[in-house]
This record gives sequence, C-alpha cells and structure tokens, in this order.
Amino acid sequence: MMQAKVKWTGGLQFVGESGSNHAVVLDADSSHGGTNMGMTPMELLLVGIGGCSGMDVASILQKKRQLVNDLEVRVSGTQAEEYPRKFTAIELEYIISGKDVKEEAVKKAIESSMEKYCSVKATLEGVAKITYRYSIINV
Amino acid sequence: MMQAKVKWTGGLQFVGESGSNHAVVLDADSSHGGTNMGMTPMELLLVGIGGCSGMDVASILQKKRQLVNDLEVRVSGTQAEEYPRKFTAIELEYIISGKDVKEEAVKKAIESSMEKYCSVKATLEGVAKITYRYSIINV
Repeated sequence: MMQAKVKWTGGLQFVGESGSNHAVVLDADSSHGGTNMGMTPMELLLVGIGGCSGMDVASILQKKRQLVNDLEVRVSGTQAEEYPRKFTAIELEYIISGKDVKEEAVKKAIESSMEKYCSVKATLEGVAKITYRYSIINV
Repeated sequence: MMQAKVKWTGGLQFVGESGSNHAVVLDADSSHGGTNMGMTPMELLLVGIGGCSGMDVASILQKKRQLVNDLEVRVSGTQAEEYPRKFTAIELEYIISGKDVKEEAVKKAIESSMEKYCSVKATLEGVAKITYRYSIINV
C-alpha cells in the first residue's frame, strides 16, 4: 500500500510527506483564503499526470533509441463550475526536442502511456476527459 | 483553466511547475528505474487529496471556533495489481489535536469536505473508493 501524509502548518498551509520520504508545501491561493506559499492540491494532480506520463514517454523513447534532448509536458485542467469543482477535462501537450526523433515512435510512446501504463491517467479518467497532443522539434 | 508543466531532467526525474509558480521534483523509485530523488506521481495524488480535504477541515473547524492545535491527514492508497495500476481504494485518516474539540464538529467538517467541497476527492472518486476515519486528541 502506498502512503502519504499532510501536516497542517497554519492557515490553509500544509506540508505533504510521501512514503518515499519527500516533502512538498501545499497552500491555497489568496482568493481561496490561502497565502499562495505552495502548490494547490488540484495543481498536484496536473503535475502528477504530466510526470507519470512523462516518465513513461521518456523511458519508452530511450528504449526505442530516440535521441531526445528535452521533454516537457504541459497540462491544462478544466474544472466544473459547481462545487466540488472536479476536473472535467485534462489536456496534455508533449513537447519533445531532439535529433531525428521519429513521429511514429513519439505517437506510439504516448499511446502506450495513455492506454497501458500511466497509473495517474487511469485513476483520473473516471471523472475527467483526458486528451493529448504533441509536437516534435528536431534540431 | 488551471495550468502545470513538467520538465524532464534526466533518467525518470522531472521538475513539476504549477501555474501558481511553485516547483516540485518527481522521480520513480529504484524498482521502477528511477533514483528516488522525489515524490512519485501517484504519491502526489495521495498528498493532493490529503491536502485538499485537510484545508477544508482546517477552515471549517476554525469557523466553528474549535481550538485545533494540530491536524494531520494520513492517506493510504491501494493500487490494482494489473497495469495501469490505478488506485482502487484510498483511505484518509484525520488526526486532530486540540482543546475541547467537539466530535460532532469534526464529523461534520469531514463530511462537508467529502460530500461538498473537496475537488480532488470528487476527481478521484470516479475510479477509487474513498473512505475515511478520524481520531480526536483533546489535551
């Protein structure tokens, strides 16, 4: 079983600690009564899906011997207007820079992540519609 | 729309940045080819739900004039055995310490978070069964 905990540090600020022994500060922004001293919990979900799928894609492209220099995943989330304001849609945009990186390899790596491997995507897709696009910059 | 991005920093390590301009390092553990230099993406979801609901509960208990000294939310996640290994169950344990903190106030604060306010819970509950318990330590 995977473990984490969050500890209140005043106001709406919390320090999150993972079972793997890393920490992160969470806070709400000022429009929600916080002081914007850390990521919001909903932002963590967007970072989580980007990181999860980014790890898959980085790993698969390396196995396919693609010469990737840079890989960035930009993530946008749309929330319902009504509380509890769940994510209704999440879009990922993969930006891959390298040398002779093949589009087919990128396309298949992303598809494998989305369909087979990415645990975060599989957890979020029950509620949020998840879409993606990509661009490849060969220099 | 809420924004975030993750940038590859080698191996399976990424730096996540939120639209609110905060950063966090992500990595996989060594059994998954990483170097355990940061939280895993799935751990971020557990920290996210704990922080989201923790903020609600801290805020509601303050409005109810409860004298809370410490508030911790411990979160456990159970993953499916099969890939993509989504979370099938998440349990939250709220541990609230204070002076004369009323159980009824705590119970209602948690219920309000779970049913009405917590955006992360509402996003994750499409796939994961979410349960909770709490303990109150009055000193």
